[in-house]
Amino acid sequence: MAHTTTEDGYVLVTGGAGYIGSHTVIELINNGYKVVIADNLSNSSYDAVARIEYIVKQHVPFYNVDIKDFNQLNQVFQDYNISGVIHFAALKAVGESTKIPLKYYENNVTGTITLLNVCMENNVKTIVFSSSATVYGDVTRFGPTEMIPIPETCPTDPTNPYGKTKYVIEQILKDIHAADPLWKVAILRYFNPIGAHPSGLLGEDPLGIPNNLLPYLAQVAIGRREKLSVFGNDYDSHDGTPIRDYIHVVDLAKGHIAALDYLKKLNKEGLYREWNLGTGKGSTVFDIYYAFCKAVGRELPYEVVCRRQGDVLDLTAKPDRANTELKWRAELSIQDACKDLWKWTVENPFGFNIENYKWESFGFDNDRKHIFKNEDLKVSICNRGALIQDINFAGEKLVLGFENAEDYKDESNPYFGTTIGRYANRIKNGELNLNDKTYKLTKNEGNNTLHSGLNGFDKQNFFGPVVKFKDGEFEALFKSVDKDGNDGFPGELETIVRYKVGKSSLEFEYESKLVKGDTTAVNLTNHSYFNTCHQSTIDGTEFKLSTNKIMEVDELKLPTGKIISTDVPAKLTLGVSFDTCFVVDEKDRSLDTRSNQLRELIEFTHPNSNTIFTISSTEPAFQFYTGEGINTSQFGSRSGFCIEPSRVLNAINLKEFNKQVILEKGQIYGARNKYEFTKKK
Amino acid sequence: MAHTTTEDGYVLVTGGAGYIGSHTVIELINNGYKVVIADNLSNSSYDAVARIEYIVKQHVPFYNVDIKDFNQLNQVFQDYNISGVIHFAALKAVGESTKIPLKYYENNVTGTITLLNVCMENNVKTIVFSSSATVYGDVTRFGPTEMIPIPETCPTDPTNPYGKTKYVIEQILKDIHAADPLWKVAILRYFNPIGAHPSGLLGEDPLGIPNNLLPYLAQVAIGRREKLSVFGNDYDSHDGTPIRDYIHVVDLAKGHIAALDYLKKLNKEGLYREWNLGTGKGSTVFDIYYAFCKAVGRELPYEVVCRRQGDVLDLTAKPDRANTELKWRAELSIQDACKDLWKWTVENPFGFNIENYKWESFGFDNDRKHIFKNEDLKVSICNRGALIQDINFAGEKLVLGFENAEDYKDESNPYFGTTIGRYANRIKNGELNLNDKTYKLTKNEGNNTLHSGLNGFDKQNFFGPVVKFKDGEFEALFKSVDKDGNDGFPGELETIVRYKVGKSSLEFEYESKLVKGDTTAVNLTNHSYFNTCHQSTIDGTEFKLSTNKIMEVDELKLPTGKIISTDVPAKLTLGVSFDTCFVVDEKDRSLDTRSNQLRELIEFTHPNSNTIFTISSTEPAFQFYTGEGINTSQFGSRSGFCIEPSRVLNAINLKEFNKQVILEKGQIYGARNKYEFTKKK
Repeated sequence: MAHTTTEDGYVLVTGGAGYIGSHTVIELINNGYKVVIADNLSNSSYDAVARIEYIVKQHVPFYNVDIKDFNQLNQVFQDYNISGVIHFAALKAVGESTKIPLKYYENNVTGTITLLNVCMENNVKTIVFSSSATVYGDVTRFGPTEMIPIPETCPTDPTNPYGKTKYVIEQILKDIHAADPLWKVAILRYFNPIGAHPSGLLGEDPLGIPNNLLPYLAQVAIGRREKLSVFGNDYDSHDGTPIRDYIHVVDLAKGHIAALDYLKKLNKEGLYREWNLGTGKGSTVFDIYYAFCKAVGRELPYEVVCRRQGDVLDLTAKPDRANTELKWRAELSIQDACKDLWKWTVENPFGFNIENYKWESFGFDNDRKHIFKNEDLKVSICNRGALIQDINFAGEKLVLGFENAEDYKDESNPYFGTTIGRYANRIKNGELNLNDKTYKLTKNEGNNTLHSGLNGFDKQNFFGPVVKFKDGEFEALFKSVDKDGNDGFPGELETIVRYKVGKSSLEFEYESKLVKGDTTAVNLTNHSYFNTCHQSTIDGTEFKLSTNKIMEVDELKLPTGKIISTDVPAKLTLGVSFDTCFVVDEKDRSLDTRSNQLRELIEFTHPNSNTIFTISSTEPAFQFYTGEGINTSQFGSRSGFCIEPSRVLNAINLKEFNKQVILEKGQIYGARNKYEFTKKK
Repeated sequence: MAHTTTEDGYVLVTGGAGYIGSHTVIELINNGYKVVIADNLSNSSYDAVARIEYIVKQHVPFYNVDIKDFNQLNQVFQDYNISGVIHFAALKAVGESTKIPLKYYENNVTGTITLLNVCMENNVKTIVFSSSATVYGDVTRFGPTEMIPIPETCPTDPTNPYGKTKYVIEQILKDIHAADPLWKVAILRYFNPIGAHPSGLLGEDPLGIPNNLLPYLAQVAIGRREKLSVFGNDYDSHDGTPIRDYIHVVDLAKGHIAALDYLKKLNKEGLYREWNLGTGKGSTVFDIYYAFCKAVGRELPYEVVCRRQGDVLDLTAKPDRANTELKWRAELSIQDACKDLWKWTVENPFGFNIENYKWESFGFDNDRKHIFKNEDLKVSICNRGALIQDINFAGEKLVLGFENAEDYKDESNPYFGTTIGRYANRIKNGELNLNDKTYKLTKNEGNNTLHSGLNGFDKQNFFGPVVKFKDGEFEALFKSVDKDGNDGFPGELETIVRYKVGKSSLEFEYESKLVKGDTTAVNLTNHSYFNTCHQSTIDGTEFKLSTNKIMEVDELKLPTGKIISTDVPAKLTLGVSFDTCFVVDEKDRSLDTRSNQLRELIEFTHPNSNTIFTISSTEPAFQFYTGEGINTSQFGSRSGFCIEPSRVLNAINLKEFNKQVILEKGQIYGARNKYEFTKKK
């Protein structure tokens, strides 16, 4: 199914942050399409886009525009070579549409007219339109079974404003194709989309009271609603409840790729054609109910109430046209959908909406700052380098960070708060020897490579985050894909940085694996600068180290391989300076240290501070650096110090230690670290 | 039918400059409604609005806005208290709609959605919507006669984009009413509007090749098209041609008033309801053809060709619902419509489109400058005072005028080019004695009234113009209604100023009558300042007067009543100055001088000029003024001189002459004047 994409333009997905839109974007990218998303986020969340990027591991251009705004939308077409559109953007709640019909006509119809104007302006004539089986209206008007399953040839007669907007847009597209037969128009009439992405990362995010059976049932299961109302059990079905055609959202998403492929194959011919996207198999309300109960593992409360106005016995699709022409067929079962929905619900009980988490744009290049507030602790993390921009505990600022995003890109930035990777600290002579092969790395500190060279993790925007809140903690997952050959390192390395923001602790965990190549070197840390002094230097900081063993270094600050003991003072004062690798565990050679106990590395505070700051880690060593080299426009020498838990310094070049850092195909590199904050008594 | 309007707001008429819109505005005003017009003039002409004002003799607020522009449209609602909307604005050509459907959806549907948004924003919930019988589609789908005549209950199924836009808008309005039952929505489904306003001033102005039978036939009759094509004569009708329900546009317009009245009577109840506006009587193509031939007075060429796709035998309305509920019924016949259409066509063979005539906005207060170009002669006339702003012959500027509209309002303006009325020149002591009653006038020159006081014709914007081109000349009619009591003058005076712009002549004619009151005094002239010298004074102008008789005046420049002879020089030189009433005809006492021969008053030129300027008139006298009093920022003393043909000076106070100026109810005041321009050999 993979496409060559080089000669193709981008597919613009309007409403690409929504339920079906987001799943479709993933399938498009999985099938080699290049995608641009336009969404006004009126009924969706940018978090969906962040998660799409997290899943597909690539940047997906996103525009927060309203399709009703000709100029803004036209700009998207100026910025990207758009070759076709999949048009989801719409309001979609039947009940709401009867209350505020004009908003529905405005958003859906005016919006589409504007979109089509922009398409015409840019000579884009390929569109896949997100329509709905609602356009058929009450097909039992033809008799109880005559039109069931419903074929595309069934006359349309929508009975509510939502359905009418879909019908009108179909008409507009039909008329446009009639006027200019070069247009390629696929009308996809959805039946009842259900389920969620199997990753548990994407799903339906209904605001307010869900109108649909499964989202409602999911909220009952998760404890947000008391019980399900079953509207009538006296229909002529096997269990008395009405029959609908439920289709897994991933199957539905794939239908769009099938339609787009079909349109592409037409070459220069135009087309206007409708396809039902349904399974062809009807399920009753109780069928769904039991399937979902099975997924949840328990019976959920329900009550049978009277029939709902407008409901009819059976609305099952006849999907033969799509099966035959598009070579597409729904493959997932109701049970699959229920399982995926339950996973999504458990992991995201309030959808994308997480209290006390917010994000804001942070400079250019799509960077964003994510702010987590857990009682006394507030932590800000950026996509760039998955860096810790701020830690604030009980009103005290504890780390150095720039307020202005652009300062992070300045040469003078001494790696403030950033994740360092793929190889932290120095590599002697910029040479990596792996399996008798020498890789020349970028030398960026004299003859050595420092913190991976010129394009390390600190210069890259991480994908995500996937943010969740469970057991009293925020979890934020960031992902990076470091390309094979970047700064000379071999192999494509995928890394997940997992932050956990508790009430008085910040944990961060690293997990890396090779996704291309056979071997590489990995050593990850975080380069936060601490300052608990409320003053411009760290002088006066009182600290307790858990070890007095250090790696001996030569004049180039590179280890000789010897571990020696040293006297360590208890206070940072004038003349006390470190750029030293302390060793916590001389014996550990684990590549994935996460099964180790967290060991305390340091405890520190300052008389000016009300906070005692403790750092612990599963790592065998840490670099202690007193920040003599800080020299930015806002921060000077010794304005912060670093504790960088990691593998031993230059482990890659030390036979005895290199097992800590050499990652082979199929292996996992891992580490855990934790900052803890205690108020002084 | 007249309404009390004081407590009511304005009716906004969108598309009020169009064919049906303009006729409806007239009926609204005739029925006491206050009207604001909004029209983007994309398919109509401001001339229609000028003619509406000319017909209804009042100012009708007009906004050149596109209903798709929320802010501009909202401003109309800010400026006027709108209580209801009659919504015509739309593209309306069926054939065109199949070629550029998106433009139709955008203009009609997006436009209406925006209009409704503005209505909601301003809590306006009353709308009469201009729909079409096109929404029924081909009603013969129900069998040849089952649904004919067509009732409102006939299912809708429009077959072209135009009809679909009307259908969609009906649906939107229906849904809005369902969501908020306080809305009052009248859907008027028109059958085939034909004819024109009986005044001959308003009618259909089809651009391009007319799609409809009668406009096409009219163009055949006027010589713009060769012959009518009759599409099929093998239908099952009395003469083989298809049957339609043709309705006079004035009847149709009245249907809107009936609908609006009906909605108003509902008081606080809402409504959504459709009404057919048709006659209920079908006519064949040949029925119409013969009726129009009768109106024209000769047989017109036609040819029977094959049937047109989509045409059906019979589309006649069942208008019973409107007849019964709205108490409205079409009253005019096909023959009336043909007669009115033919009048409109003869008098406006190219509709509102007149070559070499254009207008532009001229300052505030809706003033406009109308520019006529007839070969060597270019004349500009403004609505304010129906004033002559410029006369340019063969490249020579011949009169004084301001380029900046605001300068005309400045106190220093010495009546440049304006029509003077209702009483030109001085009235002694500001006292008007009529039928033994004395009217105190505004005294604006010492103890006298000069040029009618402070709010004469020169301060008023004239209605119109109605511009036509016939027999090689432009005709432009301006109308003023001077209210009873204005500056103390009794009676409401209606005056028409008729300009004719020939290739080398400018005629202007006055016609006044009392429309309220029994008697008044009238003396009209034009106050142009001539300068053919291409220099800043008139010195050196050579002239020949046709009379040496003048009215003797006292020291206040008021006549003693004696006519005396005087020596008149042949050249204006330093020391030669006049502000003198010359008498052409001592005996004439006509109130309407127009049946007199034009008599030459003066011929003049200047050595610098290539033009000989002649002024002639039917008037018995003229004022000759050498402009000593000119003192504007741009023009100084003696920069122009005036020849003001009129009645004898102060005739109203001279028993012997007052018949010239006393206008009684039922009488007509009239005068003709002519400027002629000859190139020197």
